Amino acid sequence: MLSNLLHGKKGIIFGALNEDSIAYQVALKAKAQGASIVLSNTAAAIRMGSVQALAEEIEAPLIACDITKVDEVSDLLDASTAHFGGKIDFVLHSIGMSINVRKKRAYTDLDHDATLKTLDISGVSFHKLLQTAYNKDVIADEGSVVALSYIAAQRVFPDYNEMAEAKAVLESIARSFGYHYGTRNKVRINTISQSPTMTTAGKGVKSFKEFYDYADTVSPLGNASASSCADYCLFLFSDLSKLITMQNLYHDGGFSAMGMTPAIFDFAAKTAEKEE
Amino acid sequence: MLSNLLHGKKGIIFGALNEDSIAYQVALKAKAQGASIVLSNTAAAIRMGSVQALAEEIEAPLIACDITKVDEVSDLLDASTAHFGGKIDFVLHSIGMSINVRKKRAYTDLDHDATLKTLDISGVSFHKLLQTAYNKDVIADEGSVVALSYIAAQRVFPDYNEMAEAKAVLESIARSFGYHYGTRNKVRINTISQSPTMTTAGKGVKSFKEFYDYADTVSPLGNASASSCADYCLFLFSDLSKLITMQNLYHDGGFSAMGMTPAIFDFAAKTAEKEE
Amino acid sequence: MLSNLLHGKKGIIFGALNEDSIAYQVALKAKAQGASIVLSNTAAAIRMGSVQALAEEIEAPLIACDITKVDEVSDLLDASTAHFGGKIDFVLHSIGMSINVRKKRAYTDLDHDATLKTLDISGVSFHKLLQTAYNKDVIADEGSVVALSYIAAQRVFPDYNEMAEAKAVLESIARSFGYHYGTRNKVRINTISQSPTMTTAGKGVKSFKEFYDYADTVSPLGNASASSCADYCLFLFSDLSKLITMQNLYHDGGFSAMGMTPAIFDFAAKTAEKEE
Amino acid sequence: MLSNLLHGKKGIIFGALNEDSIAYQVALKAKAQGASIVLSNTAAAIRMGSVQALAEEIEAPLIACDITKVDEVSDLLDASTAHFGGKIDFVLHSIGMSINVRKKRAYTDLDHDATLKTLDISGVSFHKLLQTAYNKDVIADEGSVVALSYIAAQRVFPDYNEMAEAKAVLESIARSFGYHYGTRNKVRINTISQSPTMTTAGKGVKSFKEFYDYADTVSPLGNASASSCADYCLFLFSDLSKLITMQNLYHDGGFSAMGMTPAIFDFAAKTAEKEE
Repeated sequence: MLSNLLHGKKGIIFGALNEDSIAYQVALKAKAQGASIVLSNTAAAIRMGSVQALAEEIEAPLIACDITKVDEVSDLLDASTAHFGGKIDFVLHSIGMSINVRKKRAYTDLDHDATLKTLDISGVSFHKLLQTAYNKDVIADEGSVVALSYIAAQRVFPDYNEMAEAKAVLESIARSFGYHYGTRNKVRINTISQSPTMTTAGKGVKSFKEFYDYADTVSPLGNASASSCADYCLFLFSDLSKLITMQNLYHDGGFSAMGMTPAIFDFAAKTAEKEE
Repeated sequence: MLSNLLHGKKGIIFGALNEDSIAYQVALKAKAQGASIVLSNTAAAIRMGSVQALAEEIEAPLIACDITKVDEVSDLLDASTAHFGGKIDFVLHSIGMSINVRKKRAYTDLDHDATLKTLDISGVSFHKLLQTAYNKDVIADEGSVVALSYIAAQRVFPDYNEMAEAKAVLESIARSFGYHYGTRNKVRINTISQSPTMTTAGKGVKSFKEFYDYADTVSPLGNASASSCADYCLFLFSDLSKLITMQNLYHDGGFSAMGMTPAIFDFAAKTAEKEE
Repeated sequence: MLSNLLHGKKGIIFGALNEDSIAYQVALKAKAQGASIVLSNTAAAIRMGSVQALAEEIEAPLIACDITKVDEVSDLLDASTAHFGGKIDFVLHSIGMSINVRKKRAYTDLDHDATLKTLDISGVSFHKLLQTAYNKDVIADEGSVVALSYIAAQRVFPDYNEMAEAKAVLESIARSFGYHYGTRNKVRINTISQSPTMTTAGKGVKSFKEFYDYADTVSPLGNASASSCADYCLFLFSDLSKLITMQNLYHDGGFSAMGMTPAIFDFAAKTAEKEE
Repeated sequence: MLSNLLHGKKGIIFGALNEDSIAYQVALKAKAQGASIVLSNTAAAIRMGSVQALAEEIEAPLIACDITKVDEVSDLLDASTAHFGGKIDFVLHSIGMSINVRKKRAYTDLDHDATLKTLDISGVSFHKLLQTAYNKDVIADEGSVVALSYIAAQRVFPDYNEMAEAKAVLESIARSFGYHYGTRNKVRINTISQSPTMTTAGKGVKSFKEFYDYADTVSPLGNASASSCADYCLFLFSDLSKLITMQNLYHDGGFSAMGMTPAIFDFAAKTAEKEE
């Protein structure tokens, strides 16, 4: 069995809510490969989810942090380096929320204050995290930072709403900051553009199921699971990927490379039947 | 001589400051090809620049508007349709400002409130404009909207600062709204990704000159001028481009397609000499 | 009415078969905008189609040429410059044929000699044309060359077979030769990546109709027609596009920018009904 | 220490010449992680290089094969499955040769028969390999195939000559065949777009050294080494990447994401000095 992929490495994982979360799977698997972890999420998410149980299972401190507040980020980084007794080797940013989707505002009827808030939470927060870490110099040389993105940053998925723009910001920050952090500390920064994933948020929504099945049909290998995405993160945190940086990496069973999948016609037929 | 490319068309042009501005050239050339124009910019820009003279020359109303304020956008659209006596055929969005550059904040030391303001002015403003027009239904069927972008939305140019993220937002909005406006009214929405251009802002900055020369050296055809960019806009506003939408179109003398230009070595030599 | 877009320009148009051909539309429209034309195609295509009638209508010499044979290309260029009494301003390459599709070989059962022939006819032929013109120096400074491509060069459309690779070659040649010809003569070279188009070849094939309808459904503006594609070519041949080069330009009603179109579910339903 | 990443896996590695070869490093590292290997290259390459020594070191059969000949590929696959006593889990295609570069023909003076040969050896050979394996059904379900590419497939590097087109073919085949092999067997197919690498071929060429240094300067992390590229291959062959397919993955220290690197000016200065 594979072992020691992250032997001795120390990382912060943002965004685990419950075991369906990608971040949750990353934490579990990173621990199993020899890493030490600090978990973080907003206070509200910690109350709602089961991340407390995860923290116990993997013996990780769980520290509440609103990542849009630079002072809270700063405190979290201080607490983490204190806990680890040294610099941080890897960070996962798995954070995103569309305020307009919550408010059931269509893309042609956005509340623009909400839009800016979405951009802040889901995009600019990544810059806040990186800048704070950079100026405190708390990421170890040759460290690795990963954020989770979605293909809506490049192509149109109407239901994804203003999160398309937020993910475009996120991917741009990975590139831009990747230059600065790479040049100074050989820290690499990448985004994974992941298949639609059956998380708590997703499961409850009817149209998400339809959309999930659509993506699953189009992808030659089917949709990539949260567990499989965690494997990709592990690789990017490991010493096997030291020269990969500033990339947006599709993890989607081939979805992004498809122009037209013949199976879409059968899918159409099945969908039609269900609706009758 | 070419004539009537925009015969009878009515358009709003945002962002002309003085004759070095791309928007200024677009206004002049659109008028020469038979279009009627409404000019708009912020009150401050109108005071500072020479757009008043342009307005007189092309007999266009000049209406002050802060495009980040939806009610001002709404008023402008009302005034424009009243002036035209009908719907609008084309719109140019040539607006961008980095608050952090103004504040001389480096990309690794951003003021994040300023970042959100940059995203609002340079990116989200495009959505405010489109959404207001869409809900008022003031753009004619088969109309055309263009915004000006820069390749920093895709690749890293460290001096471009957080404008990289703003342009990423802008290009994403063109795609996302292009879907909605295309489906309902066959309105097409594109961005032109333009060479660095010698505008008022640029001319004063030493590093801009260096960068401009670099791009000029790398591009097989040299940098594209403001006047040439105006030609591209005219095409996109004309009936020759009715099926082009949701694209980011490079107008850069080939810069974007170059991996390595041999002339860069001579350029290097010359730059080195100058510095001695 | 628009006039004089190509006033005084001289161009060679390859690939017109009959009035459904994009090249046929380009020839007609270019003539109407003031251009002089030389038409060319293979001897077989000239016999089969109605290009002879086109030649008479637009008063253009019609010269047979197998573009895979460099000496025939050379003769054609000589005859054209003799006819024009000077250099050539623009060239259209609208040529493609999959030998494996003809032989009904699936992509997983290719005849590889046929594959190389497809690459030669549909891709390398563009290099033969450009190299011959370049070495004879018969394209005027600031001239323009366009080839027609398809999105299968970037994403997978299984029925497109090995033409995907041929179009990838074509687009690469546009970039590579665009550097050389741009640097020496400011000649620009681009490809248009066009919607599936109802040409003679297409119409007869059942699965093409299905595919055409699929693309039409996905594209917010619907598929782009041959006539509309001709408008794009005209722009690229005109003085309005002097700084655009080495680009692959989507002309597809927005297809390339879509990730998922909600209308695909209705399309599915309709397709399912038809099959019952 | 990392162990067992490829425990029990069986793979064929094409293209090892000597220890500077990427394929050589992949073979060594794959063996160390628990894989069994079959090595292959042309008879000429086997004579010239030191792959015999490698074969002994890692206890791998070394089988000569001209990959452009389908019957030789077929024999190799038969011999490999016989040796392994079962199906193949992974394949590396590290093969490329430009006949025109050998003949010192410039890109504007290509020998087109040579061009087609380059396309065959460096691009179509990948299809021959995949098709033969597919029809014999010798790659295990969830197997992995990797080919090595270069960014010249997307952007222009004039000295790369017609290999640009060959790599474009290679990357297109990875996508196209990835669909078919993914759908039937969940076999994934990807290309790695690798930094310029100091191999035997490269070292002797003066302009390669200059170009290598240029890329090293532009890349925030510097050029990626052969050994580091081997790490990427190992990941792609492992169970950690089961849902990644049909992608072209940059392994280049960030080169592909850079628009302009400030360090290029210092590089220019140094280059200028050297030439004085």
